[in-house]
Amino acid sequence: MKRLIAVDWGTSSLRGALLDADGRILDEISAPAGILNVPAGGFPAVFADHFAHWRSTGASCLISGMAGSRQGWREAPYCACPAGFADIASRLLWIEPRRIAIVPGLSCEDRGVPDVMRGEETQVFGALHMLGLSDALLVLPGTHSKWVRVQAGRITQFRTFMTGELYALLRQHSILSRTLPAVEGELDADAFERGVAHARESVSLLHAAFSVRTLSLFDRLPAEAMPSYLSGLVIGEELRAQGLSPGAEPVVVVGAPALTARYQLALASQAMQSRAVGSQASWRGLWAIAMQLGELA
Amino acid sequence: MKRLIAVDWGTSSLRGALLDADGRILDEISAPAGILNVPAGGFPAVFADHFAHWRSTGASCLISGMAGSRQGWREAPYCACPAGFADIASRLLWIEPRRIAIVPGLSCEDRGVPDVMRGEETQVFGALHMLGLSDALLVLPGTHSKWVRVQAGRITQFRTFMTGELYALLRQHSILSRTLPAVEGELDADAFERGVAHARESVSLLHAAFSVRTLSLFDRLPAEAMPSYLSGLVIGEELRAQGLSPGAEPVVVVGAPALTARYQLALASQAMQSRAVGSQASWRGLWAIAMQLGELA
Repeated sequence: MKRLIAVDWGTSSLRGALLDADGRILDEISAPAGILNVPAGGFPAVFADHFAHWRSTGASCLISGMAGSRQGWREAPYCACPAGFADIASRLLWIEPRRIAIVPGLSCEDRGVPDVMRGEETQVFGALHMLGLSDALLVLPGTHSKWVRVQAGRITQFRTFMTGELYALLRQHSILSRTLPAVEGELDADAFERGVAHARESVSLLHAAFSVRTLSLFDRLPAEAMPSYLSGLVIGEELRAQGLSPGAEPVVVVGAPALTARYQLALASQAMQSRAVGSQASWRGLWAIAMQLGELA
Repeated sequence: MKRLIAVDWGTSSLRGALLDADGRILDEISAPAGILNVPAGGFPAVFADHFAHWRSTGASCLISGMAGSRQGWREAPYCACPAGFADIASRLLWIEPRRIAIVPGLSCEDRGVPDVMRGEETQVFGALHMLGLSDALLVLPGTHSKWVRVQAGRITQFRTFMTGELYALLRQHSILSRTLPAVEGELDADAFERGVAHARESVSLLHAAFSVRTLSLFDRLPAEAMPSYLSGLVIGEELRAQGLSPGAEPVVVVGAPALTARYQLALASQAMQSRAVGSQASWRGLWAIAMQLGELA
């Protein structure tokens, strides 16, 4: 029976899974070998280092993520939205014919300004597959969160939010860092929800973020609670921007458990439904592409 | 005839002017002796260093800005909004009776979250005095911009936006810095206005900022134009948050010429009227307080 090497090759990390023909995970690896850590021309060698032992079984390999970017192994041109599962499955970039391919990312346009994703499209189709959905609003939290609208099985529109990155910038480099403890403790759910609520009611994060300083100045929130409050502010800004209303369809949150739990808490505190799918959505998406290609027959 | 030493003592700089009884500027100084650069207990000495020669004329001194903060010379408690000129003039904090006083800052509340200013209140009342206005919407651009609503001569509400600081963070520390040239050239007005327009139409700066990356990726804006575009994005976010509509009253922009010109350009590009007032608004505000006190009689 054939096997699939499913790889999510991102900016800062490399993750891989060996899957059987039914999509079951036989083995998994993770390494800090993101594309920014690969020397020029070094992609074949890094790939061999991590996957030669799995390849000896005759498995073929599908790769999603930043490996298909201009700074990656080889550039896989973006598919323009609206784009469905069949579009990305038919536009793989083959590195070795029928052996190694890169899944293309997606682009979309909003009033003349493009947006892009690489890797998340595979997670989205994997999550839809797992949940049996063809219409959904999804969020994939992270350094650059993606909010994705799927209609009749196709990604029609998506937006990137620099949420994780801005949190880190404010936390480490802004005037607010003076108010925040150096070490981040456990999430303080009350402070987090207070931040979510304030950002959702505010006009802009550019204004709401200043409340970290003023609440501290007036001793209305202790320093230990501030990182949770700030996290609530940046995630609350995402929710404000979606214009979500209570009673809407459940938001599908895709990602690692710590982050999806935080987004689910934010959504629930604003009376919105959600469902979570773990990072295995990537594996399911890549497996579904391999099935489509008949690679696992 | 008596004279006034007007001082704007901020976080990073110290500015002073010697004014005659009619408010004319006789002399001015500026030094990088902001409150963060004053050692503990060092305020009287730094003050004497810069102003002893003016004080020998018998002039009294009024100080606005961060000198009245907890980290400053002495803490002057905030006046709560709504607050008018008479409120701050009657609540000076005297360091030396009838010789040296600090003007208090203002605080306001928005759904349980405070906001604060120190120094800008004096600029606002000075600008209103210069323009003969008692109702206005003002913006004081800077590291932390303030948008201020004045009704019947009183500041009824204001909001801080971390605009200048966020611009610097994105410029220097974010992933966008890779797209931006190290040296900032002249303002590219077209790129700036494009940024203003995109931010105003966007749902959030957290999303709009990512366009710096994607416009670069698709070669739709040259690297040299990117700092101007990003500047337009952050200022456009302020305009979006105000919910201003064309045909509204002219916005009064108070500050140094380079910044006020940029805000006036942003407002004009969105079909909004504005008037600019220079940094001498501080001197006019302090002079008006001295007049009110009878100090210059």
